[in-house]
Amino acid sequence: MTYCVGVMLESGMIFASDSRTHAGVDNFASFCKLNLFERAGDRVIVLLSSGNLGGTQAVISILRQNGKRPDCPSLWNAESMFDVALLVSDAMRLVDRRDGQHLKKNNNGFHASFILGGQIRGEPPRLFRIYAEGNFIEAGDQTPYFQTGETKYGKPIIDWAITRSTTLNDATKCVLVSFESTMRSNLSVGMPIDLICYKLDSFAVTMRRRFDPDDAYFTTLGKEWSAGTREVFGRLPDLDW
Amino acid sequence: MTYCVGVMLESGMIFASDSRTHAGVDNFASFCKLNLFERAGDRVIVLLSSGNLGGTQAVISILRQNGKRPDCPSLWNAESMFDVALLVSDAMRLVDRRDGQHLKKNNNGFHASFILGGQIRGEPPRLFRIYAEGNFIEAGDQTPYFQTGETKYGKPIIDWAITRSTTLNDATKCVLVSFESTMRSNLSVGMPIDLICYKLDSFAVTMRRRFDPDDAYFTTLGKEWSAGTREVFGRLPDLDW
Repeated sequence: MTYCVGVMLESGMIFASDSRTHAGVDNFASFCKLNLFERAGDRVIVLLSSGNLGGTQAVISILRQNGKRPDCPSLWNAESMFDVALLVSDAMRLVDRRDGQHLKKNNNGFHASFILGGQIRGEPPRLFRIYAEGNFIEAGDQTPYFQTGETKYGKPIIDWAITRSTTLNDATKCVLVSFESTMRSNLSVGMPIDLICYKLDSFAVTMRRRFDPDDAYFTTLGKEWSAGTREVFGRLPDLDW
Repeated sequence: MTYCVGVMLESGMIFASDSRTHAGVDNFASFCKLNLFERAGDRVIVLLSSGNLGGTQAVISILRQNGKRPDCPSLWNAESMFDVALLVSDAMRLVDRRDGQHLKKNNNGFHASFILGGQIRGEPPRLFRIYAEGNFIEAGDQTPYFQTGETKYGKPIIDWAITRSTTLNDATKCVLVSFESTMRSNLSVGMPIDLICYKLDSFAVTMRRRFDPDDAYFTTLGKEWSAGTREVFGRLPDLDW
């Protein structure tokens, strides 16, 4: 499994992913699922990947390779985030054409999906969820975030605490607690956690962090959040039977 | 789907269930899934049911009917909650023997499961989770609660806020918020919510409540909890990049 979150706020964006991959509980490993494409002053593009690792890595490799060819449509010359989403989708379908039928022999098929977000100069930030079939949806005011993978444990906390006007700081803490609650209940989601905060119109990534299993801040945050919830319940009005 | 929770605290127990049953989104109805067997001064037994409604209702009917026969082993003469769990299990297997093969023709099979809890004089309170096969497990110090049905959305909040020493009042609010978060994300879990709080060694139910869709307390609780979480995130230490 996997857990990835992309959030779009008035003040910027947050991207986070776990890094566990596994083929059964007796065979797991760590791979970074957060991919950054940055050209300072012009564009910041983040891709969070879930699904079959062979598939997601191939898609990223195609995007990076095409990005080196000046004559080729790529993430570096795309005019909009919508065009970037199309490029990701094209790369997914290319990999599917090559690998899909072979994977199906093992009753598996190609399945990779992505959260794509960022900002290209001339546009506001945009956030997309790209499905395994290569089609995609874009976040709006009513749903300012996307999750992939093991989404259920970590969803309520985001629904409660994050709106478009939440600060980057507060939303970051909320996203981390969302990971804590997911990892507590699903062993197939695991640290390190990769995190990027992008400040609106900055066209550069200055806040990037990796949380390893023994990260002091992450541990403290989880404990203080837990204590905080108990305090809140103590303050809420008691039920009148 | 269904959502049921049973919690065992040092000071008592909490039982809650939604009441939505459905066969597709275009065919849903309300049935109470909380069943109380009470003889004041002697025993309080609560059964929360999930799964096929025909199956769970048949099990409850057998238990009630046998309870009226003075010569028959029943919930009223069982010496312990363990014996009650065995009676529930026996009733489930009886229904399965009668209906199981017929349901399997529709690729369905008998599936009903229960959360069983309560206190019989001479014993401390006990809490069980009875699986569709009729086998069961009992709650302990490390896992003082059981859920059935759509369990994921509502689990983190219980993990954060409830320990064995949490007060009945605070844990009740937490269980209600757990329902709020589940219903927000899964349409097949729906109000009314039935709730019972049982005070340790009281051998009577004095706190029972049904929350209808427009319940003012439930609505306020959800809003104040949401505001409370935002406050907590504002207070938690900011990430040092």
